[in-house]
Order: sequence, then structure tokens, then C-alpha cells
Amino acid sequence: MKIFSGRANIPLAKRVCEYLGQPLGKLSIINFPDSEIFCKVDEDVRGRDVFLIQPTCLPVNENLMELLILIDCFRRASAKRITVVIPYFGYARQDRKDEGRVPITSKLAANLLTRAGVDRILTMDLHAEQIQGFFDIPVDHLYAAPVLNAYFKSLNYSPHDLVVVSPDEGSIKRALKHQDYLGSDLAIVDKRRSSAEDTKQANLIGASVKDRVAILFDDMISTAGSICGAANMVKNAGAAKVYIAASHGVFCGNAVEKLNATPVEEIVITDSIPLIDERKPRNARVLSIAPLLGEAIRRIHFNESISCLFKSHPIFDVK
Amino acid sequence: MKIFSGRANIPLAKRVCEYLGQPLGKLSIINFPDSEIFCKVDEDVRGRDVFLIQPTCLPVNENLMELLILIDCFRRASAKRITVVIPYFGYARQDRKDEGRVPITSKLAANLLTRAGVDRILTMDLHAEQIQGFFDIPVDHLYAAPVLNAYFKSLNYSPHDLVVVSPDEGSIKRALKHQDYLGSDLAIVDKRRSSAEDTKQANLIGASVKDRVAILFDDMISTAGSICGAANMVKNAGAAKVYIAASHGVFCGNAVEKLNATPVEEIVITDSIPLIDERKPRNARVLSIAPLLGEAIRRIHFNESISCLFKSHPIFDVK
Amino acid sequence: MKIFSGRANIPLAKRVCEYLGQPLGKLSIINFPDSEIFCKVDEDVRGRDVFLIQPTCLPVNENLMELLILIDCFRRASAKRITVVIPYFGYARQDRKDEGRVPITSKLAANLLTRAGVDRILTMDLHAEQIQGFFDIPVDHLYAAPVLNAYFKSLNYSPHDLVVVSPDEGSIKRALKHQDYLGSDLAIVDKRRSSAEDTKQANLIGASVKDRVAILFDDMISTAGSICGAANMVKNAGAAKVYIAASHGVFCGNAVEKLNATPVEEIVITDSIPLIDERKPRNARVLSIAPLLGEAIRRIHFNESISCLFKSHPIFDVK
Amino acid sequence: MKIFSGRANIPLAKRVCEYLGQPLGKLSIINFPDSEIFCKVDEDVRGRDVFLIQPTCLPVNENLMELLILIDCFRRASAKRITVVIPYFGYARQDRKDEGRVPITSKLAANLLTRAGVDRILTMDLHAEQIQGFFDIPVDHLYAAPVLNAYFKSLNYSPHDLVVVSPDEGSIKRALKHQDYLGSDLAIVDKRRSSAEDTKQANLIGASVKDRVAILFDDMISTAGSICGAANMVKNAGAAKVYIAASHGVFCGNAVEKLNATPVEEIVITDSIPLIDERKPRNARVLSIAPLLGEAIRRIHFNESISCLFKSHPIFDVK
Amino acid sequence: MKIFSGRANIPLAKRVCEYLGQPLGKLSIINFPDSEIFCKVDEDVRGRDVFLIQPTCLPVNENLMELLILIDCFRRASAKRITVVIPYFGYARQDRKDEGRVPITSKLAANLLTRAGVDRILTMDLHAEQIQGFFDIPVDHLYAAPVLNAYFKSLNYSPHDLVVVSPDEGSIKRALKHQDYLGSDLAIVDKRRSSAEDTKQANLIGASVKDRVAILFDDMISTAGSICGAANMVKNAGAAKVYIAASHGVFCGNAVEKLNATPVEEIVITDSIPLIDERKPRNARVLSIAPLLGEAIRRIHFNESISCLFKSHPIFDVK
Amino acid sequence: MKIFSGRANIPLAKRVCEYLGQPLGKLSIINFPDSEIFCKVDEDVRGRDVFLIQPTCLPVNENLMELLILIDCFRRASAKRITVVIPYFGYARQDRKDEGRVPITSKLAANLLTRAGVDRILTMDLHAEQIQGFFDIPVDHLYAAPVLNAYFKSLNYSPHDLVVVSPDEGSIKRALKHQDYLGSDLAIVDKRRSSAEDTKQANLIGASVKDRVAILFDDMISTAGSICGAANMVKNAGAAKVYIAASHGVFCGNAVEKLNATPVEEIVITDSIPLIDERKPRNARVLSIAPLLGEAIRRIHFNESISCLFKSHPIFDVK
Repeated sequence: MKIFSGRANIPLAKRVCEYLGQPLGKLSIINFPDSEIFCKVDEDVRGRDVFLIQPTCLPVNENLMELLILIDCFRRASAKRITVVIPYFGYARQDRKDEGRVPITSKLAANLLTRAGVDRILTMDLHAEQIQGFFDIPVDHLYAAPVLNAYFKSLNYSPHDLVVVSPDEGSIKRALKHQDYLGSDLAIVDKRRSSAEDTKQANLIGASVKDRVAILFDDMISTAGSICGAANMVKNAGAAKVYIAASHGVFCGNAVEKLNATPVEEIVITDSIPLIDERKPRNARVLSIAPLLGEAIRRIHFNESISCLFKSHPIFDVK
Repeated sequence: MKIFSGRANIPLAKRVCEYLGQPLGKLSIINFPDSEIFCKVDEDVRGRDVFLIQPTCLPVNENLMELLILIDCFRRASAKRITVVIPYFGYARQDRKDEGRVPITSKLAANLLTRAGVDRILTMDLHAEQIQGFFDIPVDHLYAAPVLNAYFKSLNYSPHDLVVVSPDEGSIKRALKHQDYLGSDLAIVDKRRSSAEDTKQANLIGASVKDRVAILFDDMISTAGSICGAANMVKNAGAAKVYIAASHGVFCGNAVEKLNATPVEEIVITDSIPLIDERKPRNARVLSIAPLLGEAIRRIHFNESISCLFKSHPIFDVK
Repeated sequence: MKIFSGRANIPLAKRVCEYLGQPLGKLSIINFPDSEIFCKVDEDVRGRDVFLIQPTCLPVNENLMELLILIDCFRRASAKRITVVIPYFGYARQDRKDEGRVPITSKLAANLLTRAGVDRILTMDLHAEQIQGFFDIPVDHLYAAPVLNAYFKSLNYSPHDLVVVSPDEGSIKRALKHQDYLGSDLAIVDKRRSSAEDTKQANLIGASVKDRVAILFDDMISTAGSICGAANMVKNAGAAKVYIAASHGVFCGNAVEKLNATPVEEIVITDSIPLIDERKPRNARVLSIAPLLGEAIRRIHFNESISCLFKSHPIFDVK
Repeated sequence: MKIFSGRANIPLAKRVCEYLGQPLGKLSIINFPDSEIFCKVDEDVRGRDVFLIQPTCLPVNENLMELLILIDCFRRASAKRITVVIPYFGYARQDRKDEGRVPITSKLAANLLTRAGVDRILTMDLHAEQIQGFFDIPVDHLYAAPVLNAYFKSLNYSPHDLVVVSPDEGSIKRALKHQDYLGSDLAIVDKRRSSAEDTKQANLIGASVKDRVAILFDDMISTAGSICGAANMVKNAGAAKVYIAASHGVFCGNAVEKLNATPVEEIVITDSIPLIDERKPRNARVLSIAPLLGEAIRRIHFNESISCLFKSHPIFDVK
Repeated sequence: MKIFSGRANIPLAKRVCEYLGQPLGKLSIINFPDSEIFCKVDEDVRGRDVFLIQPTCLPVNENLMELLILIDCFRRASAKRITVVIPYFGYARQDRKDEGRVPITSKLAANLLTRAGVDRILTMDLHAEQIQGFFDIPVDHLYAAPVLNAYFKSLNYSPHDLVVVSPDEGSIKRALKHQDYLGSDLAIVDKRRSSAEDTKQANLIGASVKDRVAILFDDMISTAGSICGAANMVKNAGAAKVYIAASHGVFCGNAVEKLNATPVEEIVITDSIPLIDERKPRNARVLSIAPLLGEAIRRIHFNESISCLFKSHPIFDVK
Repeated sequence: MKIFSGRANIPLAKRVCEYLGQPLGKLSIINFPDSEIFCKVDEDVRGRDVFLIQPTCLPVNENLMELLILIDCFRRASAKRITVVIPYFGYARQDRKDEGRVPITSKLAANLLTRAGVDRILTMDLHAEQIQGFFDIPVDHLYAAPVLNAYFKSLNYSPHDLVVVSPDEGSIKRALKHQDYLGSDLAIVDKRRSSAEDTKQANLIGASVKDRVAILFDDMISTAGSICGAANMVKNAGAAKVYIAASHGVFCGNAVEKLNATPVEEIVITDSIPLIDERKPRNARVLSIAPLLGEAIRRIHFNESISCLFKSHPIFDVK
């Protein structure tokens, strides 16, 4: 078993290697002056079980092409099996043709990865679970939820003081799972209402957030407009403290500006995407998914089931 | 251009041919005593643009295998292009792995169709739009909504008397489109609530249905439990009349029994699935999608855009 | 190594597991009310060598689709290798285009199996050996002949009293092999004759069957018309006892009725197809191919040659 | 439509072009001194419907490789469609694994042709009809029988004087078809008999050949041992005249020597394989299949049915 | 026939459309804030012959991914045929494994394009002609040489005053062709010499450049180090005027700086890559390949040979 | 691990087996009288790591087809992995379309090998390194240079007396590597010159060969015209001794005649191609690449790096 990393998130890859107690594989990647990527594997991988870590986060086209080139490289270097670890799968929202004459880019990405020669995929919190079906190779799909839950558990709030808040209708299923785990109440930010006229106005239904600790869960935070609106509403409804939590912190556009202007305790995300300084909100707390990925990699290598990683597990505990 | 039909819905195929003013292609299909299907095309199709109509409704495995065998047959008979018309796409709900060690059968079905040699797909109201991405061949996706809308328009209710009702949260998007077209109010049957304890109890939010005509829209009616519950609630809330409308009338399990016991004006569905007598609810009204499919076939054959069929169109008008 | 079974022939699968001394793998398969199949593997198969037993006997379309779905399921569950064990291969007789515009359904079945993701095939007594070439994956082809021979050997008839009878011209090659093993004489039911006019009338050529024990061997018994005719002719020619033997007992149409009306000692077939009560002739004797399949599975798993199973072997001995 | 020919049978290709009234396409093919084949198409084929005539007769490996190279060449030259016309399909007898660890070379040949990029196949009298199923592209399969029948018809023998003779059991089906057309009697050379001991000795069953004209039909004549034995037996049984007829005249080994020593009127074969002088029996009469192929090519090009070529047709008449 | 363009070189696409007298197809392409590309075709392309112009110049990964997404989009929009026009093919220099464990990225690019669903490629002056063989779909390969030649012809130098100079050994073949056309003398900058020690020192062999007009031809100018060295040497050898000419003006790194410091008359390149201001050398003269591409597109659409475009042609004439 | 050999170079295969200390696998290959190849593997290969040695030297079509058939055979016999060892790769010079309407036969060969089912390729001194990219399966590429160098080292010439000579411009890169290793001077036969008129006349540039030992290195010797011309020129320039060295001794056309008439000390080639007597020049010295191939096979089997075989290695030492 050897672990390698593209350039998208080397710190995460190093943490995964730390968890596994083995060095990160040696690999040189550069861009030539004409912007072409060149790579070279600097140690023997013949017959090895290779894991290659590369989220296809922004800049997504650079990172995806780099991943495809690395796959070609490892395949031609006679790796026995290539598992690509994509903690954040870019282009996931382009998963269907909801109007005429548009592409289905996440299917294209799946086809390109397969064509380049990858043997299996390890990913996390895909925007739509149907994307698994875009691949004919095996896909292992992890969830950041146990990592987020373990963190909130460690804050030692009384369950009676907690309210899990779903920021919109599409996230209710996710919120219910967190609520179930944290033993809290549930509230929902409801953006649609009664008649066609007032669909724009949102209101809060379900448990009261007044004087309690509210946690809003989403799968990813991109431009942050929607989540900031929900957080403000919850705050206005009298919440004592507001947390925002998500698996993927994309933070693009003027997300940081908006988030910094929102009265939240913390913005809790994982290190699936590297949080460079100019894309880092003030109150960001980054939880590492390295134990989650590391343990999944170990189990895939030794042919053990990974379903135990779908719920609470000691490796997620906050020390 | 030649139109052929498997045995799943010959009446629909005949209506499509009527719309197009051309005879249904001659084809023999039998089951041998050992249950094997045998087919033979009884007219020349060499170099022709073949359209093959076969919903993969129940018995789904028979109908799907028959379709695959027919595709093999037409391909070996040198058809120029084979477009499979699947007004109801079976196995559409098995579109993701939401637990470990299960298949993604709708992806499998897409792979099998492609392997058998089909060139393009014409389908209608897929359960999840991502299924289009399960194919790498072109997929044209139609909607029954304009056909349903035209019918309700023809009933001449005043928009102020109408309330479109979404039977659950997942159907709001669909309901909004119908509401927009009919100029009516909107109500939603809301099955989830406030705290973890009472998720089972549903209530009706949005516009009042009292003394008004309520229309519940869904994509398909299978065992009908959920839609009957919603219809009863709407009736209990004082609705003068209740209509149930759906694209696909599967009516399996004891659906007919349940529907017959529910106080609805009409159950409006299309002929995407043939309504045999033992699967026919008392108040069923079947609208034909033959003009919709026929026009789409004509346009595909002559390389015209089909997007005009996504909204109101004279061919859907009820005479 | 893990053994699983579809629903087509669970008793056979259990016997195979008994032979191998290991439990049958846990697997749930149901049909939803709308006739769709759903399956779930109930134990970990990651990295395992999976053998999946499913004859594609009648109902052939149900059984074939179930097999394809199971293959998709095991592949996505990361089985290391999937070997499908198809003791009876349905659609085998549709193996060529002997007239225009018909399918080659057994090639289609081979293509579908390959597309679903199977790695190798273990089958028995294919109707035409060319079907092996329909696959590009490895096919191991077994013969029931040694099992049948061992049974007849155990009856302890003197070779001089035995006559092996070929029921038609196409079966002579098979009959010769049995005759060679049993040390008996050979006779042939010859259905074609001399001039174009009397091709219908059959006669018996070769060794005399008078006052001897005749055994008719065929590859499968479907509607049984032809084999019953042959058996009657042999009886009329004065045979003391008549046996009918075949690898596959399909027994469809009114086969049971015909066989029950034919004066034969026993109808000897294998358990490649489950013999449910309404399809069971009066004098049927079912020999189990479980040791044959079990031993082949063991040898495939341990990379041993299986050619020793093509002839007499202690595991076939009747106890 | 353009017709081209490899070097295997240029005279046949020229006759086909004559039938079609169009020139043979210009093409240069040479072997370099190191035995490598080089080819170049000497006229524009962009967007054309190309037919490429090349039987894969001996030297089979040269001819097959040349065919594959030509296909690559035409594909890269942007031909719209490439139909390969293979009047004699080499390696057809290696169509199954009847023992362990042997190839299925005719399936391999089918795979190689498909991989090289051919769009469809036109062939004649395949050794086993299942070979059609080795292809997933369309295969049109012609028969030389109507050409042979037309010749024998032109000899004006009285049907009562004619006996069609099947040279062995495997050829009975073919003989029956000729007998049916010619209105003659039928006899069969039967090489297997009664007991295991005398399988070697053959005898003649069916109609008497004494003082009549016997015609033996086979699909191909290779080393000619078997057909010469049959012809001698028929002669010894008192036949007045003996004809041998076959679709393909391979004439390898010492076939010519054997045939020249056999008392036959004529050896009637077609020009599917070129009859070079050293492989030409004394009494050979070569019938041309050029009208058959030419008409099939014309019909394929214009998308007309070719089934009318499976029986008697004016173009086969002997002038 | 419809022409579309990605964002890599819209001015070139517009000139091609001008040549063809038809409008550029309507297409929207944007990058979302998270850097993902989204595109939508704004006019019907069903059944059309689509040509899509996109050089994969820098930023190569952006441009290549955009191209792949566009192909997916056109394919799903049912274009009849998609020809990708790639006047500059990026990653062309990564065409072999000259050391262990590196990728062959130009083969990867070919595989990705094919997988995305392109039907044919039109490209120009590939770095290595073997790259054509990386595709199994048809590739039409154009040369900028006739365009460059026409320009130099238009300068009306006497052939006796001209010397074509090859800037290194690898470019001699190219230089010979230009020399042949221009009727000039030839000189070669020879960088290797006599003994292992002085391979670094270059000298000029062949015709004298003294007081004459020297033209250095290369396939592309990237960082320009090598070509500037050669130009300086030629100048130092007494050339009256020095021209640099190349098919592709990449101009990356500090190419512009180097070129501006080199005493050349003009740097003549084509518009295969758009020459944005910060990458534009002082003396650059850009010749348009729009007539070349436009004529090739026209001929491909109408199935005419394109070989007439490999040499002098009126459309290349400088007005 | 098992080693097998086609019939192209059995002596080399035996030497490889000797190096590895294991017997050559048992395999029967014959040509039937009609020229068809038939093969049968005579020992069990189920689950084994099979290496199959077959240069595709002349007769190239026979040898290539035989190789393809063997691959099919081993694949169907369930070999775990098939590595084809092709020390001389035929058709390598047809690697691009340098004119219209020609094939790219070395790509075709790569496609056919892949289609037949080979898992990886081990080859040596490909004519163009881009051919590696014609494969998507892993290719290991060896060099004969270390073997040739070790021989010349063993002759114990003083480096000062040696001059490595490149026989033309295309071979300079190769010559430089040898010169570097042998520590000698370098000279180049330069066939092009100064003006368009005298390109035919060659001259010798670089180090003086007078009274020294000159070694000309090429990749292969086919018809030997060019290399003999170069050798004569070197001799005429006063060389004391002239050696010709090449990886592949094709020796076709009248190569032997020409070489015998050329005043060279020795013609040093390897046994990649068997040197049958009629193709053997007088002064030929054949170095065996068996240790090189054998060691590479061993390392591939045990997943060790093979890059140590790219330079000097004890196994190449001349004893």
C-alpha cells in the first residue's frame, strides 16, 4: 500500500499518512511555462496498491486534469490497483439535464476518471447520491457527519439546549440524522409558503430556538448566501448561539465577507478542501477527516468492511 | 421511419401510429413453452429509422428482457437507427446505493440497453432526472404535465376555486409548475414536524382548501398509500372536490382497493402503462400521451427541436 | 471463497455448499409489489472470490434479470472475482440467425452477463458448444455425462444386455460417448429416410434392442414429444426395459403428461433445474450435480485443472 | 458506393464490379522486403459506402492481416461505412473449445475484424451458422446453393435420373435442400453403424444410385479424403455418373491428386477461393458467385432486402 | 453544418465563420464562482454536422476541460457528428515515456476526447505525427506551411537573396519543404559537433547567409530561447535581415522579452493561438489560418478531399 | 510463473528459460494443410503468470497472427496474467500517416494485441518511442544498448582508439549514448548538405576516424543499403577497423550480399530475431538478449523495478 497526493490538498494527505503511520509517496508535479502539467513518480509502485488523494475543488479544472494525468502515470507505472480518494467531488451539482442542450458534467467527470484507468473511487458526501451510479467501478462513499457530531458532542451542551436547524427543505434528511444523534430538537427554515406570491419570504417552523444553541447543517458552503440568511433568521428568532456546520467549505465568491458579517459562534467544516487564508472565514473551525479517510483506506486495502465508519467511532473523538 | 411495439403497451403504440398516420410495424413475439421469448420482424427495416415503444412496467423483467431481445433483433436486421420509447422507465427508484451491498439497478438497466445496441432513448417523467446521466447515448426526456394541465384546463374551473396540492415535500417542485400554469393557489401536505417525536403526523399548510377544488399531483401512483392519505386529509379539511393526478398509474399491491375507498372525483393518469381491468380504479380517467410521443417521434426523425413539447401545445387540447 | 444463490435453484446451491462444507452466503432477494426485484447481500464480500449459482431456467426472464442484478450488486460490493455458475443456460437454442430479422438471443445473454460485470462463467452441457465463443471471458464447461454414467453403472446391468440409443441423428455423438463408457451396443432412431416423401417415418438402425435394456440419451427434455416417440418405438421393437436420460429436465408444455403415458422404467435427469411438483414426471429420478459443481468451484478457486471432471470420478459414485 | 479488393481474389472482385457496372477501386498493396504489408488507397473515399472483397482463404494469415490493415486504412481515410465481403471465412472450423486449453480462433477473427473498425460483414456458407453470433455488428449470410442448383438444372437431367447424395451425416440438412429444389431422390453415405466395433465401415442408405446420376454436396472440399471416399462408394454402387459439388474449393494437402484419381464427371465449386493452377483438379468446373455478391452489395447499398437471394433467381441462370 | 467555438480563440472562430459566410453558433459558457465551467448551446443542433473550434493552448487545462464539457453537451444535444477543430494541440510534447513512471499525456488527451464522444479531429502541425495514431477516430492533419510560404512569397524577395535556415537538426525536414517551395538556399544551425566535449557550441553549416535574407522556420515558439539563439547566430554571420516563422506562437515564460531583444525583422506566426497583448512580441506578424480551417471544414462537410490544402492554394494568397 | 514461446524464435525462448532456471512451457502449434494455425497448451496455466515470447519478425503476418491466437488460447485457459514478450516489434515503422489514405499499422497491431486479451507488453528498442502510447496497457521498454556496450568493452580497445559513428542524422541520439558509455569520440555521417541540389552526397563530420576503430550503431538493419554506404565511407576515410552494431538484425532483401561485400570487422546484432542461415552475413556476431529478457521477466513477476536494466549490469558481461 502506498499513498500519494496531487497538489490540491497536500496537508490533508500528510495527515492521512500520519494516521496510517506511513510516509507520503514521493511524486514530482510541476507546471511547465506553457501551463502544461508534468508529473513523475519518484519511487517504485509496480504491483502496489496505490491510493491517490486529490479533491477536485477549485481550481477544479486544474485539479481534475492533474488527477487524470496522475492516474495515467500510475497505470503505466504498473500499479496493481489505483484507488482515487476524492474527498470533495467537483462538478457534482451538474448531475442532470434540467433544460435542453446542457452537459451532464459530473457524468463526464466519472467517464474521464474511468477512461484514465482508475480502479476504484473513495469519496465523501456527494451532492447527489445518484452520482455513484455514474461509475461502473466500485465507489465507496463516506460521510462527514460522524466527525461533525463528535465535535458538537465534545462541546458538552445539554441536549435540551440544542436545536438542529435545517437551512432549507432539501437538507431535512441530513438534519434529522444529526438531530437523532445529538438527541436535540429540530427546526426548519422554510422558504416556500402557501401561495405562489410569497415564496420568497422564509419562516422558521418546528422547535423554538429562543435562548438555545442552534446548529445549522448543510453539505457544502459555496457563496454562503443562503446559509447566512438562515443563520440571521435563527439569530433574530432569539437563539443564544448559532453554529454553521458543513462537510465541504468551498467559500467562493464573497462567501468570507458574508460569513464574517453573520453573528455565528463558529463555522465548522472539514479539511476536505484546503482552507487557504484568503478563503478563510473569521470563525472557521476545521475538523480533520484524515482519520476517517485513513481508516477507510486501511480497510479497503485489507478487504475489511467500511460500514462501521458511517456512524460514531472512537477515531472521530475529539481529544 | 417505422414504428414497432413490444407487448407491454400495444394500445398506446397503436394510438401513436394513428397520430402519425402510419401503420404499426409488423412484428411477431411469442413465448415458447419453456418461457423463452422469440421474436421476428415481419417487414424490412434495413436502413430505416426505427422507433420501438415499450414501457418497462410490470411485469418489469419480462418487459425489459423483451425490449433487449427486440433491440438485438432490429440491430442485426440492419436498422439504421433504433430509438427506444420508454414512457415508463421501470427500476427508476433503484438509482443509488443508500446502504451497503445493494445494486444500482436503474444504472444496470441503462447499461444493458446500451449494450444491446440502442442508439437513443425517448422517455417520460423519470423518477430522478439524474438517470439521464446513466446513459451516454442521447436521452430525450418528456413531461406529462402539459397533458394533465390541458385536461384540468378543459374542466373550466375558475382559478380562484382551484388549489394545487403537493402530497409531500418531495413533490413541491412539480406542484409549483402546475400551480403556475393553472393560476391557482398552492397547499402542501407536510408530513414532518418540529420535533423528532411527531414526524408521523401530517398537516396541511398553505392555502385553504375549504370548499374549493383540490388537485394532488404526483409522478406515479404505486401502492397508493401515501396519496390516499393525503387525499383523505384534504377532503377532511373541507375540500369540495378532490382530484388525484399522476403521470404513471402503476396501481400495484392493493392500490385499487385503497383508491376506491378514497373520496376522490377522479384519478387522472396517462396511458404510459396499460390499465388492465384488475388494476383499474373506479374513478380512473386515462389521458393519452400518444400525441406527445407521436409528435416527439416525428420531431426526432426530422431533427426538429422537441422543447416546444415541454409546455402547453395545441395537440394536447382536449377535444 | 463465498457461495451465493439466486432464487432459481436454492436446493442445488445448498447441496453444493454441503459438498464444500461451507455455509451458503446470506442474501436477501424480494420482488416489490410492482414486480421489481430488490436484493441485498447480507455479509461482507469485499475482496472475496464469489461464486453465484443461478440456472436461467424457466421463468427464464425473471431468473436472468435476477442474475444480472445480483452481479451488479456483488460488483459494487467490491467482490474480487465473480464467477457465475449457470448449470442450465437458457436461450441456448437461439444461437444463430437461420432466417432473416431474428435475434441471436444467446449471444445477447452473453453480452448482458459480461456487461453486468461477471468475471467468469461455469456452465454445463450447453446446447451448442459454440456458445462458449459468445463470451470473451473464460468459460468452464462441464458435462453431466459422468454423473449419468455412474448411475447406470450402479444398476449393474451386464454390458451385453445394454443398448445405448440415440433418439435422433443430432445426438449420435453424445450416444457414442455413453456407449463407449458403458461397454454396450448402440442403436439409432433414424427419422429421415431414402426419399423426400417419407422423411417423417422413423426406424431403428444398429444393434437390436429386443429383450435388452435400452437407454436413450439426450441433452435436455423440453416438451418431450420427440423423446417419447423414440421411447415408444424402442419399446415396440421389443426392448425389455427403456430408460430415458438427459442432462436437463425442462419438462414444459404437456411434457409430464406425455412422459407419464410412455412405458419407461425411469426418466433420469439431474438437478440443474429444480423439479417442482407440477413439472415432475411419475418415474423421474433426479441425480445431483452438486458434487460436480462443488468440485469444479473448489478447483477454480484453487487454480487447479478441472479436466479430471470430464470423465469418471469417485465423487460421482452412487452410494 | 465503391468496391475495393485485397489481393486474395482479385478476379472475383473484378467480376463483381462487372456485374455492378462500375470500376474496381484503385488501391496499392505491396509487401516490403521484410514481409510487412503496406497499402494505400489511390482514390478519394471520404464519406463513401465502401465494400472490400477479401476471402480469408489460404494463405489465411496473410489474407486476414491484409484485410485488417485495409480496414484500418479505409477507416482513417474517413469512409462512411466499410462492409467487408468475405465469401470464404477462414478459421471457421475453430469455432468452439472441444478440449481444454485451445483457442476459439473464429471468435478471435471476429473480434479482430470488429476492432479494426469494420461496420458490417457479408459472407457466404459459414461452416457453423453460430459464427454470425460471434459478431455484434450486422452480418449478412449468403448461400451458394442457388448458384449450384441453377447449374445442375441447366444440365437438363430428368429428376428421376438424379440422386442427391449426402457424403456424411452432418451434411444431410444441406442435401435435403438441394434434393427439394432438384426434385430428385436422396441417398446418404452413412459412416457410423450399429455397434462400437464397425463405426469405420460406411454404407449407402436411401434411394438407389444404380444407373443414375449422383450429386454429392458438401460445404467445402479441403483435403478431399472424405468426399473422394464417398464418391468412390457411390460409383461402386453402380452410379452412371458422379458429380461432386461444394461452395468452397480449398483443395489443400494432396486434394488434387486424390480428386484426379476419383471417377467423377465434374467437381463443381464456386470462385469464392481463387483456383490457382497447382490447386486445380482436372475436372473442376468453377461457377461464379459474382452476380450473387454483386446483387447483395447493390441491395445493401440501397437498403433493400437480400432474402430474395436465398433461393432461385434469374441472375444465377446459366447462359 | 454549424460552427461553434469554445472560449480559447473566439477571434479565430469568427474569421473561420466569415470565410464560410455563416454565423458563429450561439453558445453560453461561464465559470461559476467555484471555478466550475457551465455551458449551454443556445440554438438547435439536433442532427446537425457540428464543428467545434478550440485550440488547447494555455491555460491548457481550462481549455481542454472546456472542450470536453462542450463535446458532452453537443453529444447529449443529439448533434449528428461532432468534429473538434484543434489548431494547436496541447500536451503534444508529452508523447512517449522516455523515462520510467511518467505519463503519456497526449495519449491521455486523445483518450479523453474520444471518451467524451467526439467523432473526428481536425488539427494542425502536431508536434509528432505519431499522435494521429493515438486516436482511433479519423484525424485530418493540416499544415500551416502553405500559409507561411504564401506570405514570404508576397514579400517579393528574389530567391537568390533568400536562405531558409533550420534552427536545429530536428527541423531540417520542415526547412527543406520551405526551401523547396521558396526556391532558396538552405542553412542549418548545428548544435552538436565532433566530440563529446563541445556539443554545446553551435555553428552554421550550408549556404552562406551573409548579406542575404534568412528565414528560420520552427513548429512552435514556446520560451523562445533556442530560436533566439539561432537568430542571433544568423545575424552575427552577417545576414541582412532575419525572419522567424512558426506555426504556433505559444510565447510563454519570458519569450516576449527574449524576442524583443533579438534583432529580427518580423516574427511570423499564425492565429492558431490567440495573441493577447502581454504575450505579443514587438515585431509579431500574425497570419490567419481561418481560410485554411474554413476550407477544410467545408470539404469535410461535403466529403471532398482535403489534400489540395497541403500545398499552395489561392485562398492562402496575401491580398 | 510460466514461460511459453511461439514459433518465431524458440532458441531465444530456451535461452531465457535457461537464464531463469525453469523449463519452457509445453505448447503444440501446427499449421493445418489449409494454412490455418492450431495451438494447444499442454500444461495447466490456470491462475498462472504467463510470459509468452514471440518477436513479430518476418514472416511478420504469420508470427503476429500466431501470437494473437496464442493470447486467445491462454486467456480462455484462465491464465492470471499474460505478458507478451516482443523483442522485435514488427510494423513499427508504419507509425503515422505521412500521406493521405494509408493505415497506421503499428497502432492497428497494438489494438489487435489488446483486443486479443494481453495484459502487458515487454518489448525492446521500438522504432519510435511513441508506440508505447499506442497501448493503454502497461508497456515495459528495454534497450539492447547495455548488451552491445558490454561486448565492445570486452574487446578492450583503448577509448582513444575508438570512434562511435552515427550512420545518419536520425541516429545521433543513440550514438551519443554509446559514445558516452565507451568514452570514445563521435563522428556523424551527414547525408544532407547546404543547398537543395546536393542532398544526396554524404560526408563525415566530427572526429577523425583515420587509423582508429569505428563502430556504427543503428536500431535495425533491414536491407542494409544505408549502413553499408556509411561503413564504406568510414573505411574510405581511413578507419583501421569498422564495426556495425544494431539491436535487430532483420537482414532482408539482398542485405546479406551487401554486407558480405562491405569491409567490416564484425556485424554485431542480438538474437531478438533468429538468424537463419540464408539470412546470416559472413561476419555476424550474435549477442544474446536472453539475460536481459530473463531478468526483466523475473523482475516483472516479482514486482521489482526494471530500470536497473537500462544501463550496465553484471548479467550483460561477456564471459
